Amino acid sequence: MNPEHFAPVHFGWHFADGVATVTLNRPERKNPLTFESYAELRDAFRALVYTPAVKAVVVTGAGGNFSSGGDVHEIIGPLTRMAMPELLAFTRMTGDLVKAMRACPQPIVAAIDGICVGAGAILAMASDLRLATPSAKTAFLFTRVGLAGCDMGACAILPRIIGQGRAAELLYTGRMMTADEGERWGFHNRLVAADALVEDALALARSLAAGPTFAHGITKTQLNTEWAVGIETAIEMEAQAQAICMATNDFRRAFEAFADKRTPVFEGD
Amino acid sequence: MNPEHFAPVHFGWHFADGVATVTLNRPERKNPLTFESYAELRDAFRALVYTPAVKAVVVTGAGGNFSSGGDVHEIIGPLTRMAMPELLAFTRMTGDLVKAMRACPQPIVAAIDGICVGAGAILAMASDLRLATPSAKTAFLFTRVGLAGCDMGACAILPRIIGQGRAAELLYTGRMMTADEGERWGFHNRLVAADALVEDALALARSLAAGPTFAHGITKTQLNTEWAVGIETAIEMEAQAQAICMATNDFRRAFEAFADKRTPVFEGD
Amino acid sequence: MNPEHFAPVHFGWHFADGVATVTLNRPERKNPLTFESYAELRDAFRALVYTPAVKAVVVTGAGGNFSSGGDVHEIIGPLTRMAMPELLAFTRMTGDLVKAMRACPQPIVAAIDGICVGAGAILAMASDLRLATPSAKTAFLFTRVGLAGCDMGACAILPRIIGQGRAAELLYTGRMMTADEGERWGFHNRLVAADALVEDALALARSLAAGPTFAHGITKTQLNTEWAVGIETAIEMEAQAQAICMATNDFRRAFEAFADKRTPVFEGD
Repeated sequence: MNPEHFAPVHFGWHFADGVATVTLNRPERKNPLTFESYAELRDAFRALVYTPAVKAVVVTGAGGNFSSGGDVHEIIGPLTRMAMPELLAFTRMTGDLVKAMRACPQPIVAAIDGICVGAGAILAMASDLRLATPSAKTAFLFTRVGLAGCDMGACAILPRIIGQGRAAELLYTGRMMTADEGERWGFHNRLVAADALVEDALALARSLAAGPTFAHGITKTQLNTEWAVGIETAIEMEAQAQAICMATNDFRRAFEAFADKRTPVFEGD
Repeated sequence: MNPEHFAPVHFGWHFADGVATVTLNRPERKNPLTFESYAELRDAFRALVYTPAVKAVVVTGAGGNFSSGGDVHEIIGPLTRMAMPELLAFTRMTGDLVKAMRACPQPIVAAIDGICVGAGAILAMASDLRLATPSAKTAFLFTRVGLAGCDMGACAILPRIIGQGRAAELLYTGRMMTADEGERWGFHNRLVAADALVEDALALARSLAAGPTFAHGITKTQLNTEWAVGIETAIEMEAQAQAICMATNDFRRAFEAFADKRTPVFEGD
Repeated sequence: MNPEHFAPVHFGWHFADGVATVTLNRPERKNPLTFESYAELRDAFRALVYTPAVKAVVVTGAGGNFSSGGDVHEIIGPLTRMAMPELLAFTRMTGDLVKAMRACPQPIVAAIDGICVGAGAILAMASDLRLATPSAKTAFLFTRVGLAGCDMGACAILPRIIGQGRAAELLYTGRMMTADEGERWGFHNRLVAADALVEDALALARSLAAGPTFAHGITKTQLNTEWAVGIETAIEMEAQAQAICMATNDFRRAFEAFADKRTPVFEGD
């Protein structure tokens, strides 16, 4: 992928200062996901593994909403008529989008306003950091369409973010989590005014892009891979991972800048 | 089990609207557990796996308290005189109650007022959702009787609900968690007035019973089984589990209702 | 180790009432860690496994700060000139300190005032309980020196204490967590005034030292070993671990004291 010239069909893309912005952009429908947008998003996040020019990603929605999730007519209707192999192919494709978001080395900042439901809530959950406006409304509403809460990793990931009891409530009932609850519970890292949302998310992403980006990628890898290992194993994994980072030029640059009383300039190698 | 005619000896049972209510009912002793009530509760929750008429469960206590836990004279005294094989048989039996509560497909709503300590706190913890009154007092007070905090899964489950640091404090010190702390920390999903407690818990359970109950059972299964697997594995598990739910009639019913602008009526198949 | 006469070179040591106090004590530099203090701390915590006279540990810092972490000139400079085997030997040594803190049976109470950053924040995180003053400032600032957030177990342990989203923010950005945030998020168990900090931490440690200390050690073991096992496995592990505790004299002592309406006196066997 050349991030300067990447021109996806099913979502917006902007690239500047090392930060790629993905915008779900069918605002007249509150930015639903479709078969095509799932697949194109999956492919884009997969390509980011090989696109070091992109240092951080912002995911947001156009028109005052994040995403209304899987489109009822374009996705749910067809699914009700599919045979099992097609159903599993679909759920694996959506799961592959979350896997790709977790597997790319770039930290992902979700910028959430308005409606953030269903698969939209999953994209927020699968991001690394989440900024939201006070009117953001997040719901894992799979139960409302007769499905289980276990969609795209929600039964594993959501409890680790907000706790097992709160996650159970959201997943069983499909009820809306207010922005205030989201901040209190640790889902949202910070609430910001709607007119500052995208700029604040970009500023956060730019600050990450200006950091030791190779090391950030290792941080992300370790947050993923230490998910379900014992403490002793995790500590050995970190000894190896951090030793790798100590062999980078960015580590030397930081020390030299400190010794010279300068601010370090990281280059990501 | 026929939930209409089930008549346990050691706890109360009521069944209506698809919701079974289990009431710990020795209020003069604040509803302690005994060898017999442990075993009968274990058997009842095990039977629920094969009792689809029960769609959700409420667990509560009679007389303004949830439970005082294992009875000092009826349980702790005899335990101090047992040989190791008997001790292990006992701890396995109590653990089997928690296993049975987690293994039944019905979501369990604990309705907690007053004293909720020891094994009583464990029953609350092992439930899926917890409503409490402002005067609910919860304590994992095993340390007060010379035991470890690792009772019936507490060292594994409690940290996932309220965080590792808070769980460590409760388990090492045995100190009381106030209702307000419980809500702030994510143990209690909501605080409600004492005179509304059981009705609110029943209303929540009824709303779950009116939902896609097969899917709710899958949500519960996945919340359990994804506990200690990696993210990639969890996402594949959810792809399979959700594909199963997409093959249910409830999923189709939800779509048809949506298309007809009706509220869906779920039947649990 | 004889805790009465132990005289470490690189940190302070005080022993009274069964409680050992470890004081990071280079206050003119805000108590940094050095190669030598890492190694000596690791060896001290390892020795505690065989030092039953020590029932609980307080870790604190001298002069109004907890710790400034790895010393820039004494640690970071040399690391930038090391070959990989030496780097890995270093990261394994620091990881071994966390392993030793988790592996000793004594509960560890961190008493945190002022600066608590880098490896200092890790020592706080690796403790069992954390008291802090309102001006405590905690930062996992590895990213500021060009490294990843995965230091000494942080990507595994911190998310379990404060949630995955908040941990990700602290580890990616290296930003300071205020004392108030730390309390709200479950990192700090309680905030106390600076002039009461050490005494409150000692009081908590003494109360643990007066408890059933063998059982406390089992609580700690289970909090560690059930980290990444399934629920069913955890419950069987607890059945065995608690059966062991039911065979202790402290369990019997507690029952006899209860029957006699006395306060139990635990002896740790």
